[in-house]
Amino acid sequence: MEEHQKHRNPNDHIVLVGDKPFMNYVTGVVMQFTTQNANEVVIKARGKFISRAVDIAEVTTKRFLEGTVDTAGIKIGSEDFENKEGRQVRVSTVEITLIKK
Amino acid sequence: MEEHQKHRNPNDHIVLVGDKPFMNYVTGVVMQFTTQNANEVVIKARGKFISRAVDIAEVTTKRFLEGTVDTAGIKIGSEDFENKEGRQVRVSTVEITLIKK
Repeated sequence: MEEHQKHRNPNDHIVLVGDKPFMNYVTGVVMQFTTQNANEVVIKARGKFISRAVDIAEVTTKRFLEGTVDTAGIKIGSEDFENKEGRQVRVSTVEITLIKK
Repeated sequence: MEEHQKHRNPNDHIVLVGDKPFMNYVTGVVMQFTTQNANEVVIKARGKFISRAVDIAEVTTKRFLEGTVDTAGIKIGSEDFENKEGRQVRVSTVEITLIKK
């Protein structure tokens, strides 16, 4: 379990952003609020995927779930990890929390 | 003047992130706090540069000005504009506010 997830309830709704098609993530967030009835969804991303996480939050709150879901908070941070060449590298992280109004 | 800047004091310290070398922006932020004695610096970015804005904030607060400058708040938003083909497109924006402790 990653450090920043330790204090989270395991039932929390989390979407981790990677390089799948953009709409997969938007649909994932929307479905957690609708079919899974979540009150809160956290969008997490690292490095270059941070811009995408913001796009997903904006498209969800301003288009698909406009008026019913808001961005409640945004946290940024850094993680150190070893890359495939064995060097210690630093990467920025973001957590965007969306909540049902 | 852009819409989201209307209510800002013209003396506010703003760094707009683009595709110049990464360290130019870090140095720019650091110098505003040090030689220009700013109490607050706002890092702004749009689209793909949002990830970079987060990197700049993290490197500034965790390395160069560790212990003296913190991330005070992060806002995300969207802007509509006409691209060079004349089509209306949407782009995400971020504003990261750093403050002197």
